[in-house]
Amino acid sequence: MMIVIMKAHATMREKSAVIAWAEDAGFKVHLSEGDEQTIIGVIGDGRPLNREQAERLPGVERVVPVLKPFKIASREFKPEKTTFMLGEHEVGGKGLIIMAGPCSVESRSQLLETAHAVKEAGAHILRGGAFKPRSSPYSFQGLGEEGLKYLAEAREQTGMPVITEVMEPAMVPLVCEYADILQIGARNMQNYALLHAVGESQHPVLLKRGMSSLIEEWLMSAEYILSHGNGRVMLCERGIRTFETYTRNTFDINAIAVAKHLSHLPVIADPSHATGKWEYVSAAAKASVAAGADGLIIEVHPHPTEALSDGAQSLKPKRFAQLVQEMKRVAQALDRDIES
Amino acid sequence: MMIVIMKAHATMREKSAVIAWAEDAGFKVHLSEGDEQTIIGVIGDGRPLNREQAERLPGVERVVPVLKPFKIASREFKPEKTTFMLGEHEVGGKGLIIMAGPCSVESRSQLLETAHAVKEAGAHILRGGAFKPRSSPYSFQGLGEEGLKYLAEAREQTGMPVITEVMEPAMVPLVCEYADILQIGARNMQNYALLHAVGESQHPVLLKRGMSSLIEEWLMSAEYILSHGNGRVMLCERGIRTFETYTRNTFDINAIAVAKHLSHLPVIADPSHATGKWEYVSAAAKASVAAGADGLIIEVHPHPTEALSDGAQSLKPKRFAQLVQEMKRVAQALDRDIES
Amino acid sequence: MMIVIMKAHATMREKSAVIAWAEDAGFKVHLSEGDEQTIIGVIGDGRPLNREQAERLPGVERVVPVLKPFKIASREFKPEKTTFMLGEHEVGGKGLIIMAGPCSVESRSQLLETAHAVKEAGAHILRGGAFKPRSSPYSFQGLGEEGLKYLAEAREQTGMPVITEVMEPAMVPLVCEYADILQIGARNMQNYALLHAVGESQHPVLLKRGMSSLIEEWLMSAEYILSHGNGRVMLCERGIRTFETYTRNTFDINAIAVAKHLSHLPVIADPSHATGKWEYVSAAAKASVAAGADGLIIEVHPHPTEALSDGAQSLKPKRFAQLVQEMKRVAQALDRDIES
Amino acid sequence: MMIVIMKAHATMREKSAVIAWAEDAGFKVHLSEGDEQTIIGVIGDGRPLNREQAERLPGVERVVPVLKPFKIASREFKPEKTTFMLGEHEVGGKGLIIMAGPCSVESRSQLLETAHAVKEAGAHILRGGAFKPRSSPYSFQGLGEEGLKYLAEAREQTGMPVITEVMEPAMVPLVCEYADILQIGARNMQNYALLHAVGESQHPVLLKRGMSSLIEEWLMSAEYILSHGNGRVMLCERGIRTFETYTRNTFDINAIAVAKHLSHLPVIADPSHATGKWEYVSAAAKASVAAGADGLIIEVHPHPTEALSDGAQSLKPKRFAQLVQEMKRVAQALDRDIES
Repeated sequence: MMIVIMKAHATMREKSAVIAWAEDAGFKVHLSEGDEQTIIGVIGDGRPLNREQAERLPGVERVVPVLKPFKIASREFKPEKTTFMLGEHEVGGKGLIIMAGPCSVESRSQLLETAHAVKEAGAHILRGGAFKPRSSPYSFQGLGEEGLKYLAEAREQTGMPVITEVMEPAMVPLVCEYADILQIGARNMQNYALLHAVGESQHPVLLKRGMSSLIEEWLMSAEYILSHGNGRVMLCERGIRTFETYTRNTFDINAIAVAKHLSHLPVIADPSHATGKWEYVSAAAKASVAAGADGLIIEVHPHPTEALSDGAQSLKPKRFAQLVQEMKRVAQALDRDIES
Repeated sequence: MMIVIMKAHATMREKSAVIAWAEDAGFKVHLSEGDEQTIIGVIGDGRPLNREQAERLPGVERVVPVLKPFKIASREFKPEKTTFMLGEHEVGGKGLIIMAGPCSVESRSQLLETAHAVKEAGAHILRGGAFKPRSSPYSFQGLGEEGLKYLAEAREQTGMPVITEVMEPAMVPLVCEYADILQIGARNMQNYALLHAVGESQHPVLLKRGMSSLIEEWLMSAEYILSHGNGRVMLCERGIRTFETYTRNTFDINAIAVAKHLSHLPVIADPSHATGKWEYVSAAAKASVAAGADGLIIEVHPHPTEALSDGAQSLKPKRFAQLVQEMKRVAQALDRDIES
Repeated sequence: MMIVIMKAHATMREKSAVIAWAEDAGFKVHLSEGDEQTIIGVIGDGRPLNREQAERLPGVERVVPVLKPFKIASREFKPEKTTFMLGEHEVGGKGLIIMAGPCSVESRSQLLETAHAVKEAGAHILRGGAFKPRSSPYSFQGLGEEGLKYLAEAREQTGMPVITEVMEPAMVPLVCEYADILQIGARNMQNYALLHAVGESQHPVLLKRGMSSLIEEWLMSAEYILSHGNGRVMLCERGIRTFETYTRNTFDINAIAVAKHLSHLPVIADPSHATGKWEYVSAAAKASVAAGADGLIIEVHPHPTEALSDGAQSLKPKRFAQLVQEMKRVAQALDRDIES
Repeated sequence: MMIVIMKAHATMREKSAVIAWAEDAGFKVHLSEGDEQTIIGVIGDGRPLNREQAERLPGVERVVPVLKPFKIASREFKPEKTTFMLGEHEVGGKGLIIMAGPCSVESRSQLLETAHAVKEAGAHILRGGAFKPRSSPYSFQGLGEEGLKYLAEAREQTGMPVITEVMEPAMVPLVCEYADILQIGARNMQNYALLHAVGESQHPVLLKRGMSSLIEEWLMSAEYILSHGNGRVMLCERGIRTFETYTRNTFDINAIAVAKHLSHLPVIADPSHATGKWEYVSAAAKASVAAGADGLIIEVHPHPTEALSDGAQSLKPKRFAQLVQEMKRVAQALDRDIES
């Protein structure tokens, strides 16, 4: 359904042309004529309406779409919250899920040390990048399959499922071999070939919001995955790009509650990217819990000053352990929890 | 202090000219010559350096200011947190301060009803607009002095100090007669004549961040007030303007922790404007507490659908009372509190 | 007029309540019921409708205002372009008006030297700041009335009308004594007391767009001035704040054509602030002419490396003279002109 | 090279640790100690420096990178402008290159009709999308290989080279079979696997700027392509996302001159996406020419109200023909040209 608002001085001929256009396309039409302006409601049968065509018709001032452009991702489609298991822990329920680990897998020892530390501190899922999207072709690009192998080894040793980013469709099968959860990075939120591929994979997916994506576009990208029958999708707010540069990104904390209002999917917060500075990760993480996030993904590195990427925003294990305890207290104050 | 970065192919003559410019202005200079590039450190004696002049000198690539542009507002100037009393409650200390009331004072009965309701629910300060900045000249502009009188009456009845916005220098004396705390709105954050006037008034001030102001600019505006010897300034984060339009503003939750890191001044959160929709006020308010805010200012209206302004973002008293209890639990989980 | 879009599952009771609310307020109502959704058109008699109240009514999904919120400023109100004389030159007609001069009036000799140089180069109006809005209280704040006197002297010597910024209502009479055109700076675009005062003054006004103001809000601020019967208003696009920081602002070149489409008022471009770097002023200025601007305001300083403000974005007189010739060729290529 | 700015109260021990960190990594160090602050210059040998590690060292206030992160794309690397032939026309030289055609290839007849019309009007290159990135999975996704075949047929009939978008690495060989120039869309500007693949292809590439990408990031993405030895890269400014929603995007006209200043690569403007409304395409196109663009890419559709995508921003052939003549006059006024 959409509403066509006619210009103040639109002629009868122009109004008739809009009505004819809509009816020719098989839609029903409602006409409301005011003293100053006429509006025409165009009511469809579920098929998408071409808003831009309508905007080009003579005498049309503006076109307002009424129905939300996403379906399967919406609360109207599925009113109750989506929950699913990640290893032994449920996401989307009362308990919050904690994912932690280094930005990049840098070496076997670095990963295993971190994995044991975050498990000890209370994390449920191990994160770590094997393929890294870097704005410079001259920066460290990740260990690739070797990194995936270390992740698999860390899972064996700790029992934690692992999440890692996949950057291109051709790599989806390889990453699925090693990882339990696929991460779509912010830069790839609208890489549709990749969304199709992870949809087909049937692996659980963490979909990061693009750094300048509307909440609605984020849900549309989720819709791409869901439309392949893969219902295990988590949304991840990781900060957006604004004029403020003191922090790496601006954490859109409102988006957590909005996404949960519009959609049934679990929403995860990424306070590490949302701030870009370790000093502020803790405040952002606790705020996420208070705002209703279903989980968090946090960068932890045993020796941040030696990290090959994102050192500035990584917590040391000890600080992370303390943060988990603080988040747990906030969660419990609001009738949720972080299970050990 | 500032750093002048010379272009890769800057000549000796160009470098000498920069050094001469700095020394003529009475500054000391440090020269670092690398294989690829030369940098010149210009070290002052506290007087401001003219960055833009330096940027115009031939051979200069870029100029990086080093010292923060604000002084009295900074943590370096005053490492311990600023606290002061607002009526019987301290702001900036362990307890959070809650300010609540209608967007606009609409009538005596509306204000008194709201004042008693928010006091009952746990608020410490009564807010209410008598002079309203409205983007349309045809919208309700506030009751003016009549509104101030109702605020004073509400204070008498409830014992709560009142905060209200002042929009122009000439009105400061009048507003000070009735109100306990002056509010500078987001649109006026860089209205310097007004900042001077409220600085002179010696009344406590709540300084809202401009909707596209950098955190640094916000602290510079605080500096304008502080430089008049008025130290009772509270900073208020109320959301910034970004590309996301689902919410009225984007709540920059990071700014709370950043402002507290850079400055000793108390930081108040305004979840009503930061979201613009009452459904999301509660999540944003609890997140503010978890992020370390020293207080909140929240719009409450007994009959939001009849409000003359901001009805969409106003809470009903009952919902507000419930929120205060939830915020209190979050505060206590993090070793702070909301006193009754 | 506004359109109320009901939620998919809105009840009959909720729809009736919306209709009752609108009719009680004296408006007419049109109901369109689709299979999936109902929309209610609310048609007024010119009085403003309270959108926010409607948004709070139960069952309401969204409210879409239909009529533009500005009236006197709109093309519907006055289809033909507004033109008026500034000294001997018309603004808004075929010829473009060129305003030039230093950011700040720094001394008598600096101003007079610049005035003669820009006149020689082809400028029609002299600009110069006597009162300067500066983000730091420690920066040069302008010469004040002394600066106004130098401007008046420069006008006598060159015959050019002068434009200067006014920053607070109390200063409007003083500035009107000396200046021919009042400038409202970007930071004051929503300083309503100031808009009222310049509206009352009946002096021509240049209204800069706020750095994060919507085009619609800019026209609303013009409406404040126009509603005092002062029709000689020029709009000035001077760049907006975005995530891009390489330039001082992002020049919203689209806004020139949009403002001219929505309004009959002349539109002036400020390529100096829109870029913030002199190297890019020329490209931005020529682009403004090609996009249809009715004039330009450009910062020129005889010795930019000694400027007390905005040195980085000021052109030297020789470069400015060359730019005027280039702009003239572009203007003539598009059937406009820059008169000598 | 980078500059490490130490905190005001950094200890000798902290300064020594920064120096040791830099020297251990094989870099040279310059120390400048002021009364208030110490800065440490870290000078490399071309290897990338890890800024984030430095930011985590104790006592460090801030780290400022000095060298530009892109090399092959920079003017320092190659001072003279890059030019190359696209069919019979050179891009990057005195003449501007005009690319035009429909957003999507919709049918054989639609494409051929448009191709002949834009050729007639003065276009040099035919554009048309066969694979379409759409935010909704339910929208028209393009004709795929069938569309490529029609493009090849249009080239045969008109002699114009064709440009079309490629969306995933696996499709690069197929698209190269049919198209002369590959387009990377805004959503894929940081799809690194795709940048590698088009770099390897050795086909000319048009690289659109991401809708929230910094100019510097855009040049870094060009660097990815150039680093594969593919030097025929054109940059394309197509508007960025800001708070202003009246136009589909905000046309960053400054970016044209800035990109040409920082890089030797040709810069193309896309006024269709930069405005999103056909009424404003003409002003934006002429402004692009005046700002120094080396070419334009413009959407043209014979029947915009029937277009399957982007109808609102498409020009009709007659309007496009008129625009080409206007642009030609602007180009000639500035000593450039549009060849027939």
